[in-house]
Parts: sequence; C-alpha cells; structure tokens
Amino acid sequence: MTRRIAIVGAGGYTGIELMRLLFNHPRAEITCLTSLEDIGEPVSKSFPSLLDRIPVPLETLDVEKVAAKADIVFTALPHKAAMGVVPGFLKAGKKVIDLSADYRLQNIKVYEQWYQTHTSPELVPEAAYGLPELYRERVRGARLVANPGCYPTSAVLALAPLARDKMIDPETLIIDSKSGATGAGRSVGINTLFCEVNEGFKAYGVGSHRHTPEIEQVLGDLFGAEVRVNFTPHLLPINRGILSTSYAKLTRSCTTEELLEVFGEFYRDEPFVRVLPAGRLPNVAAVRGSNFCDVGLVCDPRTGRVIVVSAIDNLVKGASGQAVQNMNLMEGFEETLGLDILPLFP
Amino acid sequence: MTRRIAIVGAGGYTGIELMRLLFNHPRAEITCLTSLEDIGEPVSKSFPSLLDRIPVPLETLDVEKVAAKADIVFTALPHKAAMGVVPGFLKAGKKVIDLSADYRLQNIKVYEQWYQTHTSPELVPEAAYGLPELYRERVRGARLVANPGCYPTSAVLALAPLARDKMIDPETLIIDSKSGATGAGRSVGINTLFCEVNEGFKAYGVGSHRHTPEIEQVLGDLFGAEVRVNFTPHLLPINRGILSTSYAKLTRSCTTEELLEVFGEFYRDEPFVRVLPAGRLPNVAAVRGSNFCDVGLVCDPRTGRVIVVSAIDNLVKGASGQAVQNMNLMEGFEETLGLDILPLFP
Amino acid sequence: MTRRIAIVGAGGYTGIELMRLLFNHPRAEITCLTSLEDIGEPVSKSFPSLLDRIPVPLETLDVEKVAAKADIVFTALPHKAAMGVVPGFLKAGKKVIDLSADYRLQNIKVYEQWYQTHTSPELVPEAAYGLPELYRERVRGARLVANPGCYPTSAVLALAPLARDKMIDPETLIIDSKSGATGAGRSVGINTLFCEVNEGFKAYGVGSHRHTPEIEQVLGDLFGAEVRVNFTPHLLPINRGILSTSYAKLTRSCTTEELLEVFGEFYRDEPFVRVLPAGRLPNVAAVRGSNFCDVGLVCDPRTGRVIVVSAIDNLVKGASGQAVQNMNLMEGFEETLGLDILPLFP
Amino acid sequence: MTRRIAIVGAGGYTGIELMRLLFNHPRAEITCLTSLEDIGEPVSKSFPSLLDRIPVPLETLDVEKVAAKADIVFTALPHKAAMGVVPGFLKAGKKVIDLSADYRLQNIKVYEQWYQTHTSPELVPEAAYGLPELYRERVRGARLVANPGCYPTSAVLALAPLARDKMIDPETLIIDSKSGATGAGRSVGINTLFCEVNEGFKAYGVGSHRHTPEIEQVLGDLFGAEVRVNFTPHLLPINRGILSTSYAKLTRSCTTEELLEVFGEFYRDEPFVRVLPAGRLPNVAAVRGSNFCDVGLVCDPRTGRVIVVSAIDNLVKGASGQAVQNMNLMEGFEETLGLDILPLFP
Repeated sequence: MTRRIAIVGAGGYTGIELMRLLFNHPRAEITCLTSLEDIGEPVSKSFPSLLDRIPVPLETLDVEKVAAKADIVFTALPHKAAMGVVPGFLKAGKKVIDLSADYRLQNIKVYEQWYQTHTSPELVPEAAYGLPELYRERVRGARLVANPGCYPTSAVLALAPLARDKMIDPETLIIDSKSGATGAGRSVGINTLFCEVNEGFKAYGVGSHRHTPEIEQVLGDLFGAEVRVNFTPHLLPINRGILSTSYAKLTRSCTTEELLEVFGEFYRDEPFVRVLPAGRLPNVAAVRGSNFCDVGLVCDPRTGRVIVVSAIDNLVKGASGQAVQNMNLMEGFEETLGLDILPLFP
Repeated sequence: MTRRIAIVGAGGYTGIELMRLLFNHPRAEITCLTSLEDIGEPVSKSFPSLLDRIPVPLETLDVEKVAAKADIVFTALPHKAAMGVVPGFLKAGKKVIDLSADYRLQNIKVYEQWYQTHTSPELVPEAAYGLPELYRERVRGARLVANPGCYPTSAVLALAPLARDKMIDPETLIIDSKSGATGAGRSVGINTLFCEVNEGFKAYGVGSHRHTPEIEQVLGDLFGAEVRVNFTPHLLPINRGILSTSYAKLTRSCTTEELLEVFGEFYRDEPFVRVLPAGRLPNVAAVRGSNFCDVGLVCDPRTGRVIVVSAIDNLVKGASGQAVQNMNLMEGFEETLGLDILPLFP
Repeated sequence: MTRRIAIVGAGGYTGIELMRLLFNHPRAEITCLTSLEDIGEPVSKSFPSLLDRIPVPLETLDVEKVAAKADIVFTALPHKAAMGVVPGFLKAGKKVIDLSADYRLQNIKVYEQWYQTHTSPELVPEAAYGLPELYRERVRGARLVANPGCYPTSAVLALAPLARDKMIDPETLIIDSKSGATGAGRSVGINTLFCEVNEGFKAYGVGSHRHTPEIEQVLGDLFGAEVRVNFTPHLLPINRGILSTSYAKLTRSCTTEELLEVFGEFYRDEPFVRVLPAGRLPNVAAVRGSNFCDVGLVCDPRTGRVIVVSAIDNLVKGASGQAVQNMNLMEGFEETLGLDILPLFP
Repeated sequence: MTRRIAIVGAGGYTGIELMRLLFNHPRAEITCLTSLEDIGEPVSKSFPSLLDRIPVPLETLDVEKVAAKADIVFTALPHKAAMGVVPGFLKAGKKVIDLSADYRLQNIKVYEQWYQTHTSPELVPEAAYGLPELYRERVRGARLVANPGCYPTSAVLALAPLARDKMIDPETLIIDSKSGATGAGRSVGINTLFCEVNEGFKAYGVGSHRHTPEIEQVLGDLFGAEVRVNFTPHLLPINRGILSTSYAKLTRSCTTEELLEVFGEFYRDEPFVRVLPAGRLPNVAAVRGSNFCDVGLVCDPRTGRVIVVSAIDNLVKGASGQAVQNMNLMEGFEETLGLDILPLFP
C-alpha cells in the first residue's frame, strides 16, 4: 500500500531533494507540501525543475490539516522551527522523520548549550538517530526519527569501524570537512551569493560548529567513552557533496590493506557504503545525486596515523536520501526502495 | 522480457550516461561493454561513480562477440568509427541505436562535404532520425536509428511548431547555442583542461560546425524547402546542458501568448517537452539529468521577431536519454520507461 | 599633481573594482568612500581582499562632505540614486564620472520610458557618453561623463566599424550577449545565490532589457538613422566577463579577411581594443581583470551574414576600468595610466 | 637599470604568471622566452590573454643563447628538467631563480628518496630557499634561489611563529591543504579535464606527496629538531588558491588573542603576510592574483589545539610572485616592486 507523504518546508533544498527521490518511490505519494511563500501556487513556481511533475500546491503549515492528508511527515525545517510542530504530528498519530537537529542530541544539556532551550525534551529519548548503518533496529521501531546531520554522517561512517574496535586514539581525532554550498540552505545573504562563493574557499565555524557535539555523541557511543574532536567545516564552491578527511593515531601498527579489510567486513552488508580498494580515494563527484557514502583510507607508517577520507552527497545520504532510507525501515519496505540509483557523473 | 544491451564505447560520457539510465530501466540488462582501454577491468576503474553496480568487464570491440551477447547495440563512438561497425551489427540481426553522426544526414553528398567519405551509404535511407517528437512512427519500425545531435535536438524542438506552420521566415533564422563541456567528449587536450574552460566562455566553429547541415535537414523537412541558418555554438563552463536562443522574423504579427498556445498544442502529448508559461524562460539547471526539453519564447513587437529559448541536458535528451527513448519505441515499451525521472537541482 | 578621489557606493562590485584599479594609479589618491553600511569601518570589513591597503573608512553619503574631500567623484550607485546626488557634486565644482544609466540616454523620453522620471534632465545634454573609442573628444572636455553600460560597451565596440561604414543592414541586427554574475551587482536574492547560478545558464530580460535603447542610441549615431535591434542577455555561471555574439546581413559581399582589415584600421590607435586575426575568436577568460575589448569575426558566405564576437571584463572595460580611462582623458593624463595591466589568466 | 629577463618554460601556468607580473615591473624587461612548442611564434598563440603585449617570440631552450640575452633566468620547468639547465646558467654568470623542486631540499638523500638521482648536488648547499619571511638575508646574497613549493609556502607561513617559539608539539602536527587546479600545471590528461574536476573534490597523494619533506625541512629548521607531519593535499575545482588548515596541540594554554599577538609581532614588517583579526579567517578569493598570504587562527580550549588557516594564490605567493619577490631581494630592489597590487575580487 502506498503511503501518503507530507513535506513540511518544501521551499528549501532538502525539500526539493525529497520530492526528487520520492517521485520515483513506488510506495510513496506526495500529498501535501508546506511553505512560507507562494501559498496556493505549484511548487514548480519556485523550483522550475519540477514543472508538470509535482502537481501538489503549496500550503501554509497547519499541523492539523497536514496531518489529515499524510501518513508520514518529513519535517525539513530549521532547528527550533522543527520542534514547534513535531509533537503535534506525533500526537496526531503520524510518523515523523525530522531533518533538523532538534531530536539528535540525547543529552538535553548539550543541546541547549549548542542550540537553545528545548521545548519538547520528553520526546528526545524515544527519537531514533537515523543512521541505519549503526542504529537500524532502533529506526525500524521508531515513530520519530532524528535524521542525522550531513557532516556527522560523513564523519561517523568514516570512523565507525575504527572507533568500535578502538583501533584509534580518540584524543588524537581531527575531522577536516568540506561541504558544497547547498549545505548553507536556500536563505539569502551576501555570503552565499554566487560571486562571493565561486572561485573561493574558506573555513568557517572553526571550533564552534554545531555538528561537533553530534559527532562526539555517536563516536562516544562507539568508543564507550566521552570523545572530544576537532571538527572544521569548509565551504566548497560546488553545489553538492561533502568530503571529510579524518586523522587519528593508530593504537596498534597496521597496514592500509589490513584496515581496509576491517572496513570491508564492517560494511559488508551495507547497500550504501562503498569501501574503496587500496590506492583509491573518494571524490564527491562520484556520489553526486546518490545515497552512497564512499570511504577510502591510507595508513601512514611515518607518523603512525590513519587518514580516512569519506564522500557523500550532502543532500542525499547527508539529508533527504537518508530520510527516505529511514522511511523504508520504519515502514518495513526494502531498505533501498527508491534509492537504488547511480550517481550523476559528470 | 528483458533485452540484453551492449554499449559500444563505454569509456566516454554518453557511454556512462547510458549506463546510468539503463541501470534503472526495468526491461534492459547491460550485458556487454566495449572500450579501447582497461580491457578486462570493471568499468568503474575509469568511472568510480559506477563502483559495485555495473559488474560487466570492459572488452575489446569485436562485432561478432558483442552481437552474441546482446539484442540491442548502442554505438557511442565518434563518427567514422561508428560506420565501421554498425553494418556488422545489423547483419547479425541486431537493432542498432547509433549516437554518432554517421546515419543522420540523408543526403550523402552533404554528409561527405561536412564529414568524410561514407562507407555504408546504402544503410542511410533506412536509418530513422531518432527525434521521436517528429519521427516517432519511423523510429518504431526501424532496426537502425540515427540518434540526433545534441545541438540539433535543442534547436529543432525550439523551432518545429513555427517551421511546420511557416510562422517564421527561414531566411532570417539565427540559432545561438551554448553547451556544457561534456559536449566535447572525454578526449584530452589543452582546450578542455579545467583551468582553460573554467571562468571562461567562447564561441567556436562559427560558420562551420557540423551540426549545421543536420539542423537544416530537419527544418527543411518541416518547411518543405531548403533552409540555411546561422548556427553558432559556444562553450559553457558547466558540465551539462545546452541552451539555444533562436531568432526569426515572424511572417505575421502575433503575441507571445498566441505563439505559446501553438507550442502547447504542438507538444500537448509529448512527455518530454515542457512549454513554459508566458514570462518564464528555460534554464539548463532545471533539466539537468532529465530527458526534458524546456521551451519558452517571447515575441518582440519592436522588431517583429520571435525569440525562442530551449534547454536540454546534452547527455540526456541530447544523447543517451533520447537513445533510450528510441529504444523504448523500437521495442514497443512505454516511451517513458526508465526516463520518468526528475532533474537534479541544484 | 595627484587627484583626490571619492567613490560613492563603495560597497558594490564596481566600487571595489575602482579601488583595485585606482590603488595602482600614480595620479590618484582615494580620499573618500561612501556606503550604506558599516559606516566608520574600514572598507575591508566588507571586502577582505582590501585588508591593510585601503585605510579610508566608510562614511555616509553627504554631498557636501564628500565634495570637500575630493576633486573627482565616481558615482557607483544604482540608476535613480545617482541622479539624486550628481547635480550636487557638479554644483560643488567637482568632476563626476557616473557609472549608472542616468545620463546615458540623450533622449529624455526614451529614458523615462525604460527607467523612470528624470530629475535633472537639464544635465543630460552636457553629459559625455564615455566610450572613448567613439566620443574621446567630448569626454576630454566634460565635467560629467556618463560611463557606458557593460552590454552596450561590448556590443558597440563589436559593431562600430560596420555601422559607420554601413556595411551591415541595421534591420537584421541581432545581439546575443552573455554576462558573468557580477553584472547583477552585490544585492541579495534567491536568483543570485551560488546554488541557483552555478551549473546553470539562462536568458533574461528578453525583449525588455534596459541596455537596449542605449545600444540603439550609439548605433543610431553611427548609422545616422534610427536603429532597432534584438538584444538578449544571458547569465553565465562565472564571476566576470561579457561575450557578445552579433549577427547582421552584409550589405555587400566580403570576406573575413577584408572585414578584419576594416576593423584593424578602425581600431589601429586604440590601446584597449584588440582585433583578433582570422581563425581566432575572443574568450572572456583572455580579458579577465584587464581593460581590453577583444574582437573577432567570421563572414558566412552561405548566409551572407557576418558574425562578430567581442569579449570584455564587465567590471573593467564594462564599468570601472572604462571609468578610469575617462578620468584620464578628463584630466589630461596618459589615457592608459593605471590600466596597462595584463589579464589574469588562468 | 633594467634587468633583462629570460623565462625558461614560458608555456606553463607559472610561466604566464611571471609574464603578467614582470610586465608591470619597472626594472625588468622580458627578453627571452623558451618553450617546447610553437617555436618562433609569439607567446600569445598559446596564451591569448597576452596578445599585443608580450612581443617576444618563443625559442628552443639553448642555454648559451638564452644566457646571452638575459641577466636573470627564471626556470619554470618540471623538476629534473630544471637541474639539467640550471648549472649551465650559473656557469654563464647568470642569476637563477628556479621554480622547480630541484634545489629546495638540502639533504640530497631525502631529495633522491622522494624524487630521483640529483645531477648537480654540489649546487644544493649554496641554493637559498626563497621564502623571504624566513631566509631573507640568504636570498639577498644568492646567485641561485630555490623558489619554494606552493603547499610549503602556505603551510610554513601558517606555522612559523608557533614553531620558532615551540608553542606547539610537532608530533601532533597535521596539515590539511586544498589547492586550485593550476597547481597541476598545464599538462593534459583525463584527470585534469574540466568535466572531471568541476563540481568535484578529492584528496590525492595522501601520505606520499613530495612537498612533505620540504615542509618538514623548514619546520625542522624552526623547531631545531626533526619533524614529521601528516600533509594531505586536495584538489579544489577553482583555478587559483591554496588554503591550508593546520592542527597542533599547544604546549601551553593560551587564547586566540594571545596567539594572534605573537603572529602580529612575527610578521609586523612583512609586506605580504596579513594576520587577520580574531573572528576572521582567510579565503582564497581574498588573495587571488596578489602576493599576499593571509593567516587566521582559532584556539580550541576544548581540545587544547590551535587551528591555523592560511591562504595564498598558488601561482603568485606560491610560485611566480614569490620568485619576483626573490629577484627584488637579489637585485637590491624594493622588495615589493611590481608586486604591490590588490587581489582581483570577485
């Protein structure tokens, strides 16, 4: 049976990406789209690529009305705005996949320190952190999924096998990430103008980016201990893609090949994680438009460190694709349904 | 029943795009890939985006061996190379969709004037020009389809309604086209290096581009008379997309709205041509990765001209997507099978 | 003696480009910068590239105060805002180079039809249209220069030799132009976001762009008759550069070489117009950062048309560089002073 | 008195950048250009941006002939090729600024381990490592300058103040660098095609890039001890610019402001190093086309690490601009002569 889908926040980049993916999902039908603008208009007014294919008009966000039209609600809103509506949808008996940060951090104090006061802390414990490669079973049974952040997805998938087996010293962990400009969303400002981003490259949020505690929470789970990392995001002059380069001291001497074997084993049955053979490293261009996370690594015997490189499309595995993957799990569908597509290259 | 597919010339950009599209085609199975390099290796060696998804190894082009493995052959070769193998595939009883220019020009003299000596002129009369919007019935019955050039596809779809109804003076026709860099193929040279193309823009082949006679042939068919146009291609610093801006004097006074109605009527049942409403014009970004051709237009009462703007993805509607559309017609499949996907934006 | 320079509107892209060029001008000293924002701050707060080199703080636009600090005022404001202050600067005895459209159109009715009511029409007749290649003597004696639009500069320099000698039929003139995104200025909006422009290409303002009457005015001067053209601007996903491709029927048969000779003669003593030899055509990348206008052409004997291609950097020859060239003429300096720099390639 | 300049290897990107900078140098005159191709042609045949401005024809590299025409020779050749001609130029009494890696590593064994056999090891001890900020006096007296690599320039300038004062633990040093595509030179290959680089991002040479020992040599000098670092280069889809993000454990607790003061002091009299105030970080776009190195930093009290970010234009401060700076020092000119230009933004 087909599920009726509402996308709350259809005017942003994760919103349009959900539409692109769900359009080809055999068990999903988009029945409701909300937005702040262009109410009553077809969504293609704002996104011409959707012309003639998504006939649903945009409507104002009214929890009750949306709930009446949908079985599953994707909330593609900024943090804070999300927690303003998620409780309502749950109360109405809907399943919610929340793409904001509001239900990702299990420790409310940490959330409130990096974000702001939480208005529905009682829902946090039941929210499943929607990284299927680590929390698949929790997602299956959840009515609320906190869809992971884009940077954390790329970093955690790069480090999980090493963290679980304590093959690296968490004290030495450095994550240097680079993201395409869709990561900044569709809001206007001088800093995201074409001419300000194009042919440029910079770091931002150094030492203070809000994805830091999220990365630390998941790695902490894996290490079984508190972890503190340096995480530095950068802005790439491309539309899509995150590449994370992670560094850590190995706790025992090993070769690139040995570690690749560990990774291969860890991700053996994962449909969306591709471990690259020795001598090859990921490129964001090779995952564009797909739900893949490509991972490669090198051990440097000169310094005793491992360098792990991972690449995702921040709008797919880093947001909307992972959200659909979570929906598939929640609904008992084949996990890859609607997502078994190849990257768009070039 | 599934068709077995061979792609001859799997190392180029139209080759990889065929793989991307056919991977999700429910009635096609890629069984054979040929290349000049990396023989015996998986195609993902050269195209990492395909890793773990296209298990077919590359092989040398041997007509007999390829024919034994496939029902349908896509020849994604340069002109001249294509006509070296197409006759063999036909002789072996295979259907062929040729993406080169070799069977597009019905007048052999014109072909030989713009290209070189034709080595299988006897096949030209039976080759269907694979632009379904104009030649659908011919394609259905064909065993050899000459898949149109990228520029001609964009230009002809922009002008066909006007040409058929003689609403423009063919003597005044100017087609100013701009193409992304995949149009130059994957061959190496100083001119296609990143740093030479990026942040640049230029015209090339002015007055001499080989797609000129192809455009003139199809427009001549529609006008019922010989046509000579000025066609100027330009190189855009983007991967994908052609935008053609066409100019012509109107033979009678009319408004933008009236002409849009003619276009709407002409393309009413076409799944892949989207006629934009008045006040809106196409953008290559809105068709990226899809088989759409978006068309918009403006009548300028100051000069009595119509300006028609059309946009396609040169690798999809301009090459591999149209080839799959032709395959669907030849095989009696639903015409949109495997092609009903939304553009990747942004 | 050094001239004291005020730049009114220092927060935009033509403002920063004036600073870059004047920084190396041996006879100019920037003494005053006005802006709407960051008053009291160094201009490098908004433009980090200027750090430590332009120590002048930003101030509010007060005509009297600005006039007291400067000998020459560059007004880099939007149209309408410019004519609000230009009369005041002239009254204060300053020379003004206005980069807006407000004093370009000699026919006030035409101005008011394409823009809005003119509030200082009495100044229009004395404003020199600052295209030195055509109006050098007028500029030399002027106290007010209307610096040309970027598109008109590229189009007029491409067509002037043909227009003056009536070698083309003005009825057949089509100008297809493509501009980098700095042409849209530094104002915020969805349409100029990185992700909306990058990997895209579109036409805009078709049949209605305000540079149309400006092009027609100058070409009309040259033809000695009223001219109506089709001018179509497009948005390129690059920072800088305009390439214009112009088409017209030749009034008599001639070859590419013959026309190039006419162009070579016409521009023989021009320091900033480079006529390319036969077989070569301009690229915006080859003029980036310089005051050059590169021009190339092809005669097409098949259609009797000439295709002229011209390239400029829209911020230099299309705005700030031409403004400095005009200042040099007004002040009796060597015309190339501060402008004899090579393009930045790649 | 003007110096006569030869550029050996004028067909590459560092060659053209030398021409751009020297064209505006008041004491330099380009008298000789060598190349492998287009012998006898003007250099603008290969680089249209130089049209009409650099009238010197290309010639074959003949050490004697070149030496006869020049006082100073810039060798812009690949490593190995450089050491084939440098000894000849020195023997002919010329000063040489070598942009290759051949004379950078003082330890011949290290050179031979990372490159190949050295054919003029006797010249290495007298070669001055041309990073003026650290080795100014040595450069002044040198007849042979080894112009630093682009990555080492960006990394060393970011870390020198910390290394000299031993404020960081060298064991913990990680340098994550990202370079524009001009860093790969102008040689052809699939990997540097526009469509392979555009909209992509990847790491390369992980654990094995040849700039590693060069960085270690200079940092070792500053620390007074052997240093081993992890250096990871990445390829940015832009033309120009390197941004390096460096991480290290602080040896004592300190704040961002305190460290910035150390940097400010260290670089107080340096014309080309700009230390950014607290809260601001470099962007490659803000140094494009200039000889600046911008440096910013953040101390992270959570992890006890400092993160230093530095940006240069790899073709200017990372190659040709630094070479001109070295020439100025060698010739006793003002150090900033010909280099006091502002970045091209946007």
